[in-house]
Formats: sequence, C-alpha cells, structure tokens
Amino acid sequence: MIFEESVRTPAAQALVDVTHLVQKAVAKSGLRNGHILVSVPHTTAGLTINENADPSVVHDFLRRLEKIAPTHDPADRHTEGNSHAHLKSSIVGTCHPFIVSNGELLLGTWQGIYLCEFDGPRTRKLIISIIG
Amino acid sequence: MIFEESVRTPAAQALVDVTHLVQKAVAKSGLRNGHILVSVPHTTAGLTINENADPSVVHDFLRRLEKIAPTHDPADRHTEGNSHAHLKSSIVGTCHPFIVSNGELLLGTWQGIYLCEFDGPRTRKLIISIIG
Amino acid sequence: MIFEESVRTPAAQALVDVTHLVQKAVAKSGLRNGHILVSVPHTTAGLTINENADPSVVHDFLRRLEKIAPTHDPADRHTEGNSHAHLKSSIVGTCHPFIVSNGELLLGTWQGIYLCEFDGPRTRKLIISIIG
Repeated sequence: MIFEESVRTPAAQALVDVTHLVQKAVAKSGLRNGHILVSVPHTTAGLTINENADPSVVHDFLRRLEKIAPTHDPADRHTEGNSHAHLKSSIVGTCHPFIVSNGELLLGTWQGIYLCEFDGPRTRKLIISIIG
Repeated sequence: MIFEESVRTPAAQALVDVTHLVQKAVAKSGLRNGHILVSVPHTTAGLTINENADPSVVHDFLRRLEKIAPTHDPADRHTEGNSHAHLKSSIVGTCHPFIVSNGELLLGTWQGIYLCEFDGPRTRKLIISIIG
Repeated sequence: MIFEESVRTPAAQALVDVTHLVQKAVAKSGLRNGHILVSVPHTTAGLTINENADPSVVHDFLRRLEKIAPTHDPADRHTEGNSHAHLKSSIVGTCHPFIVSNGELLLGTWQGIYLCEFDGPRTRKLIISIIG
C-alpha cells in the first residue's frame, strides 16, 4: 500500500515534522509488524529523524548544516544556485526505513520524523510505502 | 522478531563495533534470506557501516566529523550543549537496512557495523528487527 | 533474489549513474510491489540518490564534499591516505532502500541512483537484493 501526502514547506530551509503523517498511514494500513519506507522523492529536500522536543535543536541543525554546505558558493557550476541543497539532500538521505511493532511506529522517546526542505518554500511529496 | 541489546559506550564520542550483536540476532531468528533493520533509537547517537580492520580509521573518522560539527559552537541556541551530536546523528543516520543471504549478514570484506556515540558515555539501545 | 554487478569507476572521486542497473534487476526479478535494497559493499565508496539531469550538479557535489572531507589532512593516523573516503562513505551511506510499485522503481522525476567512488579508480560491486 502506498500513501502519498503533500507537505507545504514554510521557508527556503526548514524542517517540517511529519511524524503524524507516517503514523496515520501505518494506522490506515492495518500493519501490525513489519518494515515501512518513507520517501521524499526530490533532490533538493530530504528526510531525517531527530529530536522533536526542543525547537532550538532544529534551529541549530539548519544553521550548522548551512555552515557545512553554504547556499552561496562562487565555485558552483550549476546555474540554478541550489547545489548546496543537492548536497544537503544526500547528507541526510531521502528514503528511510522504519520498524512497525504491534501496530505502532517504533521510535525512540525523543525521535521525530522530519521532512527537510533545502530549496523552498515549495510543496513536497511524502511517500509512505507499507508492504503487508 | 525484535531483538534489543544494551550497548555501553566508553566516551563522549566513540564508535562501538556491534557487528557480532547483529550477527547473533540473525542466527537466533533463523532467517535465511531477507532484509533486516538495525536501529539506534536515539537522537544524539547513530549507526554507520565502516572499516573494521584498522582502528586508526575510527580515530580519523571521529576527528574529521568533529571538525565538520564541532562540539562547541557559541551560536547554538539549544542549551544542552549537544546540538553537534544531533547533527552528527542525522549525518550518519540511525536506522539502516541490511541484506541477509543464506543465513548470513551480507557485508563487504572490510565492512563492520558501528554504533556511533556522539554524546556519551551512556548506555544505548540497539534494536534489530527481523521479519521472516 | 540477489543480483550483483561490477561497476568500473573512472577517477579518484566520481559519481556513476547506476539507475539502469537497478531497473534491470527489478525487471528480471518480476517483482511488482515491494521494497528492495541496493548495497555498495565497500568502505571507501557509497551510494546516493541525486539529480540526474544536469552534470554540473555532480561536479558541485564532489567539490563541495571534498571541502567537507579533504583528501589530504596531516592529522590523519590511517596510513593508507583514504580516511576522507571512509568518512564520505558514511556521510552518503552504502545501502539504501527503494520502493517498487507496479513493477517500476519508484523515483522522483529528477532522482537517479549514483554509485559514489571516493578512492578510485577501481572496480566496485553493486548488490541489488529483491525479496519477493
């Protein structure tokens, strides 16, 4: 079963908590135990699992990642100006597996699932694939 | 089948070889061919596959990663002082899939599985999920 | 079913598009819907999903990654001189899951699958594992 969601991102770079969308798909699927895949089928966005309690973690995360892969780099050849976003996408990844146990997404206490926008704002696809 | 292990990490930042724990779970499960997931359900730790022969690789790995995401950064807002660890966790990832073939974990000659501690020392969970 | 391909990489650092090799394995397997794993069982190479339209994206990607993890670093202890490649391998990852839907690899419009060479040129293995 494949579920597709649209996620509107609010800024050029942002982390959007999508944990509830994944949980909703798991509930709808009726899966009790198994492995699912969550994919963001884009090349300037990504997906990551990180802390969902203190919003300052997200702030520091994006600022530090920007230092690693700065938006502006005069040596870039790609003329769209989003080479940084392509690299960031590969750093965090775009498709991640998750464990479902007793009908519930198995996450740690502090873990949430974030869609990572690196070249927004845009509307992004989130695909949740659940094999029975 | 879900196996859970406790892993004691020895330092603030360390790579702990957990290959044997994953192999033990595969053997116990009786799985012959399939895909398994290994998860570290934390937001300041992670999991990676890297060389398990020369210990200096691990040393260089942690030192170089620390240069990318330094422990101390006065611009951090998160007051726990571990924003670097959250970023490192997302860079290496926390849940990875592995292939099992003929009852054996399929790894390359030099590949080992490492739990990555970025905010230790602590006791961390390692979850191995095997669907028959 | 496990498919193995040999991929010759052209340079010390390069991204080689292997999308067609993965598609060929999916077609041969006859899988209609499911999850597959693609693995590069090496510790100085990796796998990533990124844009496959403009070649300048690949150029910027490798140049920017080299800035993050420079080939030469006098502080490295590992005497083979490829510690940078080990780190790059962990940053992009070596084993990634993909969704197959209606017999087709489910990728975004701009997504291609790249084998990442970080210590070449060499012949690398690409493993595609498909569980029915």
